[in-house]
Amino acid sequence: MYATRATTSTLTAQRSAAQVLKALNGTIPQSCRSLSTSQTSNSTKHFFEHANAPAIRNTEAAWSHPVYTAKQMNDVQVAHRETRNFSDRFALLMVKLLRTTLDLASGYKHDKAVALGQKDPAKATQKYAMTEKKYLIRNVFLESVAGVPGMVAGMLRHLHSMRRMRRDNGWIETLLEESYNERMHLLIFLKMYEPGWFMKILVLGAQGVFFNAMFVSYLISPRTAHRFVGYLEEEAVLTYTREIADIDAGKLPEWAKMEAPEIAVDYYKMPEGQRTMRDLLLWIRADEAKHREVNHTLGNLDQKNDPNPFVSAYKDPSEPHPGKGIAHLKTLGWEREEVIGKRA
Amino acid sequence: MYATRATTSTLTAQRSAAQVLKALNGTIPQSCRSLSTSQTSNSTKHFFEHANAPAIRNTEAAWSHPVYTAKQMNDVQVAHRETRNFSDRFALLMVKLLRTTLDLASGYKHDKAVALGQKDPAKATQKYAMTEKKYLIRNVFLESVAGVPGMVAGMLRHLHSMRRMRRDNGWIETLLEESYNERMHLLIFLKMYEPGWFMKILVLGAQGVFFNAMFVSYLISPRTAHRFVGYLEEEAVLTYTREIADIDAGKLPEWAKMEAPEIAVDYYKMPEGQRTMRDLLLWIRADEAKHREVNHTLGNLDQKNDPNPFVSAYKDPSEPHPGKGIAHLKTLGWEREEVIGKRA
Ligand SMILES: [Fe+2]
Ligand SMILES: [Fe+2]
Ligand SMILES: [Fe+2]
Ligand SMILES: [Fe+2]
Repeated sequence: MYATRATTSTLTAQRSAAQVLKALNGTIPQSCRSLSTSQTSNSTKHFFEHANAPAIRNTEAAWSHPVYTAKQMNDVQVAHRETRNFSDRFALLMVKLLRTTLDLASGYKHDKAVALGQKDPAKATQKYAMTEKKYLIRNVFLESVAGVPGMVAGMLRHLHSMRRMRRDNGWIETLLEESYNERMHLLIFLKMYEPGWFMKILVLGAQGVFFNAMFVSYLISPRTAHRFVGYLEEEAVLTYTREIADIDAGKLPEWAKMEAPEIAVDYYKMPEGQRTMRDLLLWIRADEAKHREVNHTLGNLDQKNDPNPFVSAYKDPSEPHPGKGIAHLKTLGWEREEVIGKRA
Repeated sequence: MYATRATTSTLTAQRSAAQVLKALNGTIPQSCRSLSTSQTSNSTKHFFEHANAPAIRNTEAAWSHPVYTAKQMNDVQVAHRETRNFSDRFALLMVKLLRTTLDLASGYKHDKAVALGQKDPAKATQKYAMTEKKYLIRNVFLESVAGVPGMVAGMLRHLHSMRRMRRDNGWIETLLEESYNERMHLLIFLKMYEPGWFMKILVLGAQGVFFNAMFVSYLISPRTAHRFVGYLEEEAVLTYTREIADIDAGKLPEWAKMEAPEIAVDYYKMPEGQRTMRDLLLWIRADEAKHREVNHTLGNLDQKNDPNPFVSAYKDPSEPHPGKGIAHLKTLGWEREEVIGKRA
């Protein structure tokens, strides 16, 4: 029964992917190949190639992705930073509210015991039916709004710097890079699932509401806004951890044998032999863990005066310091004293 | 008489600079040194150093500036791209309108003959009294809004890409980098002149109006918006060309002996021995010429489907192609056929 479902859905996925590709300018003709039929990957050739631009070979990605090692990605943990004050509690409440609404709307259910491999997956499948398609819909929807906060924050800090005639101290870059990374997540999932018109309208509405909400929030309290994103990313890490666990528990048979789309292979420079859908989810989860670290850290800082710890050089290079990759990933963010130093 | 005025004004400039520095977190203690009193430049040490961040040595600039050669910068030309259609004429009209309003408001006058060295500067000084201070006020004001269009365009294309679930094709990066570059221009001029409260209010108002105008314009017609910026940059090249000519004509005695502030030396990596105010104006003018090229080019393209020619690799590498620097600067922008190729 699994086999039949898998085959049908794989065909559907391939057909959808083809449609997305058409909409996306026909850059990659075959994105969802199963591992068994894979040929030599010729990825760089196709990445960002343009059908209607005969003179152009390809277009570079804006921010080249930092390198994560397999060990670093496997070490990423689900985690929760305890709230410490009203601002934190408000941010967490908003995230819980959003998550609950979305779970209800998208019919997301999850059995922790199954995810952790403590139950027989075959028996649980009927009750907790998170399929590849349900996950994809959820991922596409979430990633389509995930790129909003970084852009809003970066733009507002840019305008603020010019208006107040003050240095920004390096924050904008990291915020814009985060928004770019989230947009890449979206473009990657779009290679596997093409939303219909109903979902597109939902996305449009969600973006409008979320953009304005983030805009106003960031003007009122950037600390709370960063904390909110920090908590949101905690949830993102949780979701991708479950997707990986579900693959391991045999609940997502299509994904278990699927290759990552070429756009992802190119963007992450995924090493040969580590280009499965599961590998891809490890990369994306690590990105979310990085955003979690960044936003929880920024939420700990003096918004107006502190430099961005993630693009700064430190006086004492012997200790681990925040940076672009996840070599010294701090699950709950860095405290201000650790990165900026004690106040004079 | 010159000598007296120069000395007094230099002192004033130094005092103002000290005030700016205080407001700017005290990063650079001595920015407007005259050439005669200059010491060994220890620039990297001070760049982005933070008074209240004892653990941090410095913070990197977000986009490192491309290298321009002295010859490339000297070759930059004042130029005007002829209008070809209604959209172009509308864009040009708006620029002319803005320029006239600003000229009237800021009391900007300029005698071409003096700038070109055809008249005796001493005699013309009284009538066309563009002083260092007047230029600085003008530059600070213009640069404080110059960072708006790139950010608005980049943000809108980012949101559009996520909403429509389409590739952006590399435009966002260049637009955001442009806005960053303009903000650096502002921060550089702020090292030489600190605006008072009245000007700060003007800047605040101007940013609000300009941000919204660009936002709406870019939604209605991104082509026209890019053309508008292209024409605006034509004016910027003109203004900086005049400032350079005025230095050469002996009309700006303070600038003639002033060193570029350290923030500029660091950002542009200005070579030793080429760090005067005049050199700085050459760098800034070249940036504006680059923006002129970029925006006139983008205004020639299919906004939805064409890749960004400035971050693309070309099939035929033998011909000159657009890129990050100004090695192949096209004064009036590249035609679509030259960079994208002929339509199929
Ligand atoms: Fe994401
Ligand atoms: Fe994220
Ligand atoms: Fe500028
Ligand atoms: Fe400019």
